[in-house]
Amino acid sequence: MRRTLKAAILGATGLVGIEYVRMLANHPYIKPAYLAGKGSVGKPYEEVTRWQTVGQVPKEVADMEVKPTDPKLMEQEGVDIIFSPLPAGAAGPVEEQFAKLGYPVISNSPDHRFDPDVPLLVPELNPHTISLIDEQKKRRDWKGFIVTTPLCTAQGALFPLAPIFMNFKMDGAFITTMQSVSGEGYPGVASLDVIDNIKVLGDAYDAKTIKEVFRVLSEVKRNVNEPKLEEVTLSATTHRIATIVGHYEVLYVTFKEETPAEKVKETLANFTGLPQELKLPTAPSKPILVAEKDNRPTVYFDRWAGDVPGMSVVVGRISQVNKRTVRLASLVHNTVRGAAGGGILAAELLVEKGYIEK
Amino acid sequence: MRRTLKAAILGATGLVGIEYVRMLANHPYIKPAYLAGKGSVGKPYEEVTRWQTVGQVPKEVADMEVKPTDPKLMEQEGVDIIFSPLPAGAAGPVEEQFAKLGYPVISNSPDHRFDPDVPLLVPELNPHTISLIDEQKKRRDWKGFIVTTPLCTAQGALFPLAPIFMNFKMDGAFITTMQSVSGEGYPGVASLDVIDNIKVLGDAYDAKTIKEVFRVLSEVKRNVNEPKLEEVTLSATTHRIATIVGHYEVLYVTFKEETPAEKVKETLANFTGLPQELKLPTAPSKPILVAEKDNRPTVYFDRWAGDVPGMSVVVGRISQVNKRTVRLASLVHNTVRGAAGGGILAAELLVEKGYIEK
Amino acid sequence: MRRTLKAAILGATGLVGIEYVRMLANHPYIKPAYLAGKGSVGKPYEEVTRWQTVGQVPKEVADMEVKPTDPKLMEQEGVDIIFSPLPAGAAGPVEEQFAKLGYPVISNSPDHRFDPDVPLLVPELNPHTISLIDEQKKRRDWKGFIVTTPLCTAQGALFPLAPIFMNFKMDGAFITTMQSVSGEGYPGVASLDVIDNIKVLGDAYDAKTIKEVFRVLSEVKRNVNEPKLEEVTLSATTHRIATIVGHYEVLYVTFKEETPAEKVKETLANFTGLPQELKLPTAPSKPILVAEKDNRPTVYFDRWAGDVPGMSVVVGRISQVNKRTVRLASLVHNTVRGAAGGGILAAELLVEKGYIEK
Amino acid sequence: MRRTLKAAILGATGLVGIEYVRMLANHPYIKPAYLAGKGSVGKPYEEVTRWQTVGQVPKEVADMEVKPTDPKLMEQEGVDIIFSPLPAGAAGPVEEQFAKLGYPVISNSPDHRFDPDVPLLVPELNPHTISLIDEQKKRRDWKGFIVTTPLCTAQGALFPLAPIFMNFKMDGAFITTMQSVSGEGYPGVASLDVIDNIKVLGDAYDAKTIKEVFRVLSEVKRNVNEPKLEEVTLSATTHRIATIVGHYEVLYVTFKEETPAEKVKETLANFTGLPQELKLPTAPSKPILVAEKDNRPTVYFDRWAGDVPGMSVVVGRISQVNKRTVRLASLVHNTVRGAAGGGILAAELLVEKGYIEK
Ligand SMILES: NC(=O)c1ccc[n+]([C@@H]2O[C@H](COP(=O)([O-])OP(=O)(O)OC[C@H]3O[C@@H](n4cnc5c(N)ncnc54)[C@H](OP(=O)(O)O)[C@@H]3O)[C@@H](O)[C@H]2O)c1
Ligand SMILES: NC(=O)c1ccc[n+]([C@@H]2O[C@H](COP(=O)([O-])OP(=O)(O)OC[C@H]3O[C@@H](n4cnc5c(N)ncnc54)[C@H](OP(=O)(O)O)[C@@H]3O)[C@@H](O)[C@H]2O)c1
Ligand SMILES: NC(=O)c1ccc[n+]([C@@H]2O[C@H](COP(=O)([O-])OP(=O)(O)OC[C@H]3O[C@@H](n4cnc5c(N)ncnc54)[C@H](OP(=O)(O)O)[C@@H]3O)[C@@H](O)[C@H]2O)c1
Ligand SMILES: NC(=O)c1ccc[n+]([C@@H]2O[C@H](COP(=O)([O-])OP(=O)(O)OC[C@H]3O[C@@H](n4cnc5c(N)ncnc54)[C@H](OP(=O)(O)O)[C@@H]3O)[C@@H](O)[C@H]2O)c1
Repeated sequence: MRRTLKAAILGATGLVGIEYVRMLANHPYIKPAYLAGKGSVGKPYEEVTRWQTVGQVPKEVADMEVKPTDPKLMEQEGVDIIFSPLPAGAAGPVEEQFAKLGYPVISNSPDHRFDPDVPLLVPELNPHTISLIDEQKKRRDWKGFIVTTPLCTAQGALFPLAPIFMNFKMDGAFITTMQSVSGEGYPGVASLDVIDNIKVLGDAYDAKTIKEVFRVLSEVKRNVNEPKLEEVTLSATTHRIATIVGHYEVLYVTFKEETPAEKVKETLANFTGLPQELKLPTAPSKPILVAEKDNRPTVYFDRWAGDVPGMSVVVGRISQVNKRTVRLASLVHNTVRGAAGGGILAAELLVEKGYIEK
Repeated sequence: MRRTLKAAILGATGLVGIEYVRMLANHPYIKPAYLAGKGSVGKPYEEVTRWQTVGQVPKEVADMEVKPTDPKLMEQEGVDIIFSPLPAGAAGPVEEQFAKLGYPVISNSPDHRFDPDVPLLVPELNPHTISLIDEQKKRRDWKGFIVTTPLCTAQGALFPLAPIFMNFKMDGAFITTMQSVSGEGYPGVASLDVIDNIKVLGDAYDAKTIKEVFRVLSEVKRNVNEPKLEEVTLSATTHRIATIVGHYEVLYVTFKEETPAEKVKETLANFTGLPQELKLPTAPSKPILVAEKDNRPTVYFDRWAGDVPGMSVVVGRISQVNKRTVRLASLVHNTVRGAAGGGILAAELLVEKGYIEK
Repeated sequence: MRRTLKAAILGATGLVGIEYVRMLANHPYIKPAYLAGKGSVGKPYEEVTRWQTVGQVPKEVADMEVKPTDPKLMEQEGVDIIFSPLPAGAAGPVEEQFAKLGYPVISNSPDHRFDPDVPLLVPELNPHTISLIDEQKKRRDWKGFIVTTPLCTAQGALFPLAPIFMNFKMDGAFITTMQSVSGEGYPGVASLDVIDNIKVLGDAYDAKTIKEVFRVLSEVKRNVNEPKLEEVTLSATTHRIATIVGHYEVLYVTFKEETPAEKVKETLANFTGLPQELKLPTAPSKPILVAEKDNRPTVYFDRWAGDVPGMSVVVGRISQVNKRTVRLASLVHNTVRGAAGGGILAAELLVEKGYIEK
Repeated sequence: MRRTLKAAILGATGLVGIEYVRMLANHPYIKPAYLAGKGSVGKPYEEVTRWQTVGQVPKEVADMEVKPTDPKLMEQEGVDIIFSPLPAGAAGPVEEQFAKLGYPVISNSPDHRFDPDVPLLVPELNPHTISLIDEQKKRRDWKGFIVTTPLCTAQGALFPLAPIFMNFKMDGAFITTMQSVSGEGYPGVASLDVIDNIKVLGDAYDAKTIKEVFRVLSEVKRNVNEPKLEEVTLSATTHRIATIVGHYEVLYVTFKEETPAEKVKETLANFTGLPQELKLPTAPSKPILVAEKDNRPTVYFDRWAGDVPGMSVVVGRISQVNKRTVRLASLVHNTVRGAAGGGILAAELLVEKGYIEK
């Protein structure tokens, strides 16, 4: 039997932090042991936390005091692993500091996503990239390490795209998103931007989405050898609308050769990865759920889908546009699969593969 | 000088009807003379009308009694022209009846949009199709005639697409829409479908959007002769979100040859049509306004744009995806340009061209 | 041990119906055995049901076929008890028919709420009114009976008001509501009524709310004997806003004598009733939860509060306005405490008291 | 004839600032001559301004450069009057500085609202308080002066309450508000606070609303001499909901003697003040419009009511609760009547009364 790992959750009072707390409260071998915050330090977790999710604050953490992001205190508490959904900018140096001190750091923040020796990990898609950790530790002379997870929006696109890219001669994808406001944290999106309106996220957000999709696609194992990734066209047009959680994305996917939508559908429906093989506790049995009805997926009804709620991306509207084009829509739970759940699954993989000591 | 034309507005209390009333109250030679309804017959217009638009109910119609959709009464009132934003199904037979009796009928309803002898008119795009009226009158032995305008969603796509198709070797377009709830009239969309949610409109709505775009594109005058329209791929994925009025659409447009986004932008920015040439009263000086900022167009800030508010489609986010692909976004005021304003502009063209007597 | 009661849920696919299904799926001795609908008859429950609540359709009912509201079929299935969240108008005759045939019918519909021999039951407030059943059966010569539960809005007011009326010389209450759209079922409230707007429900809704509050107050056991209920002033101003579930109400309560807010708070915080005493399975340990923070209760964060989620009314903002006036706000889960949960709790009480055979 | 007054609008790019710009663009004798901002200094007004109102940015100001809040520059431009919708905290010292320099300063900010020598002016309610200016100038040895306008929420309550307090033996008022998000400026209210939720504003906001109502009531001319204001009970429970502009408030008003709702209604319907008498350009002919339908006022349909759009408060739902209690609802346009429009009307009164030189 495995010993229990004590987790510190940085930004534990944030929108991603609460999903870590919710999910770890029932975890078989990782428990929320240290809840770190900034403005809310010193107060009981339940009192200062905006619990904008399902269920209630778990009893075992309700009265826990929020603590500072302080290595000394964490050492005293015997923390084994650090989950870091800190804001961009704040995250980078803190994560380095902890890695240096020997902690495994799983980060959902953007600061280290493009360090070449840091995995940008989606456990079902590019699990072997965890071997970058060896290089990272050596090069940086660290006892611990950093692993990151991609932008939630990128994950909503990647779940259908990666299996397609792995199995078909995919030529490009044109993505249009309708993202929820929780993607910017709290307070985040101004209400005046989304009441009777849409918020157009613009060039910078479009670009970063694509950049992350490209990195992960460059790391998946393909069953086809054409076209080269450099030849693939990707574009995203990104928006926020007045939804609380769940990012919805429409994808038009083009191919270099005739590609039946039915085959694509089958591939997605049957897709599984290493987490499923290893039966990791937070791995949904199906990372992709295919919706059959032509009015699904929707944000409200599909965001919590799957046997590990929020961990399956729901894909629907799969249909043939022309011989070489397939249309589909995806729905990803941005703070679960797109952040906390993805982080926990990463940790489980790292434990299984020996990068985190049991 | 032109005599004043007395207009009957069918469905005058509906969401499209009110825009007819608002716009005609200030029209130089068409005036709202007969306001027809169904449930609200017999009551003063202001009392029974949900004025879900800008400004207030015009004084001259506020106390007008809503009347039945009755040819006899209209004759007594000396009605010259009929605008018909009636619900699908109800519209068809009523419109035929009036056309038979000699009235010019401008319809925004779908019932006759695919009759081959009935124009599906966007005055800037396919003005010459009004000559179908001659055939229509002859074949049906009618004294009057029916002219229709396309689905609001189709118009939001057509405004950028038609000029592109006319001037470039356009290969296809992949459209994703975020439409407002007013597009379904009142009560229309259930609040439970769009609070913290999106409403996926599904296959039938996707298909009818494309079908209407195809018909209008088949009728525009092209400056290029490739590819044939049959070879063009069009697809739409349609949704409603919690916005009141204004349909937002993202379009990925592909071409058979290298096509610079800058050229496309220039073409759209400079596009004008016959209504502008003829200086029709309801013609905006620019049917397409190009937005420069990368967070525009938006629903709230752009739906009333232009010198004839609501009559210009705002196009933005024009950018190069790859050599043969351009991305753009459009915003159309669904009840003005997409319905009432389009109908009034059609009437003005018909007056100018002698199909409606001055 | 108790035998399992087989429940038929009429309107099982509706917004109240789904809460019955959700709650009974885990009930110790009532199980959802017959799911009745109208438009959805003949189809698998999961396929036709809009599951607008937390969690997923319980496995045991997902594939159950929706059946007609047919006594014969129910008899064949061995139904023991009927829950009836049918629409007003449709409910009345159906409920009578079933009661006549010998079924205990628990109704959430308004049709029989003012029959003098039909309990309008809130188990914590007027449990002894179940004795009306004896009279009802006799007078109507029925083998079964009907018990009703009050309007959700009335319950949101009653939970604070009844304990206050029981214990203090309450003179009146002025209620202003912000109700969720689910209160009207699906499709229910038009999105155009609540986007950037409030829907004012008007005189009829105001009046029926008060009428139901009065009836229940007339039936509670008081510890004070002044003023007479006829002398109490009640008024409600009712509205819907763009929230999915959860009715929020502000109450200004006036008294005939000095009444400290602290005492009122204490009374509410300590309030329990017969269901708590009997430890009925669906009874929350605290029917009223007192919120301390001055920004609570809110709709989003408090609707699922309590140890039986959705069954506790959250009351907050309790404060002294003047010596004889106290202000408070309440939040009731309209489809749980205000309908299905209240119905199940009623059934449990009836079982316990022998009106439904174990 | 009157010379044109050159106005500087501080915070001209804010939500109140844009209403000043919109209204002054058509003003007979005040023109927007100097647009001051902070973050947006140096850029053309149209480019940096979030025009979250009706119509379009007026041509004459679209290209005007936003300037710093700098007395020297204003002097160079020959500014005559200053409108100050600056944020709380920033406003106070700036306003004093300008008053000292000789400018009439009309402020919508809270910083000086409770200075005893600064009018808290609602031109229809307490016009004679402008005489405080004489005292203010003397005491502070200023050449200019400051006049403030009350909190938008207070004004929504004051419009019905002041005429009632002036004419009836009003005993108290219990107010419940549903305020729009624009009341907090931009970005202001977080979308996560109002999507599927209400934002409870809490004790501090409740208290300041009442405090301002009390001050203005203490200054109106009464036709009754009972009760003393100190004996009047006022309470407000304040909230924001997902509406863009327009504050809706429900008021339960109690009286010391029998008071027919019909009389109250008549009083409100006939209420006018000095601005109407003087026919000030921005004075609506009726400061209070009485809505007759029992589903009005609403936010969407009534906020722009009246002959000077947004300047009339719409009051409805006036009804008898008991002999001494009347219920009513009001709707105030928070950035027009509640801020910019109120400020302009104040300026007009000051011009008329000689406090601002023509
Ligand atoms: N939201 C999503 O959908 C999503 C998805 C993927 C990735 N992410 C990434 O996850 C991170 C967190 O996002 P979020 O939405 O959870 O944000 P959030 O709701 O704004 O929460 C931020 C959290 O970080 C803490 N914090 C802020 N500044 C800090 C500092 N300087 N030092 C230490 N702690 C600090 C806050 O603590 P106090 O409350 O105590 O001040 C709070 O707990 C971001 O990097 C974001 O890009 C978010
Ligand atoms: N909304 C849009 O954005 C849009 C855009 C393009 C085209 N259209 C088309 O325009 C038409 C009207 O749409 P809408 O949104 O204005 O609908 P709406 O708000 O539902 O209004 C319907 C109007 O038609 C009247 N009416 C209903 N049934 C009738 C009947 N059997 N006979 C005569 N009058 C009848 C109603 O009168 P009473 O109120 O008196 O019952 C009402 O005035 C539809 O065909 C729609 O497809 C709409
Ligand atoms: N929603 C609330 O918050 C709430 C609270 C307290 C009480 N109530 C009361 O509960 C009742 C149900 O409300 P709801 O919100 O659940 O409504 P809903 O969502 O509209 O559901 C109505 C249900 O009734 C069925 N149905 C409709 N007409 C029928 C008929 N003639 N015969 C048999 N079944 C019929 C429908 O079946 P199909 O889908 O198969 O057509 C559906 O299952 C109403 O009386 C309401 O006043 C509601
Ligand atoms: N909104 C309402 O309904 C309402 C009603 C009554 C009274 N008020 C009061 O009116 C004031 C303005 O409210 P708002 O809603 O218009 O706010 P807002 O939308 O946030 O606008 C604030 C404006 O002030 C400028 N500004 C900010 N800080 C400044 C500083 N330190 N020095 C100079 N200029 C500064 C901003 O300029 P840049 O954009 O250039 O940075 C912007 O133009 C507040 O005091 C508010 O309490 C508001």
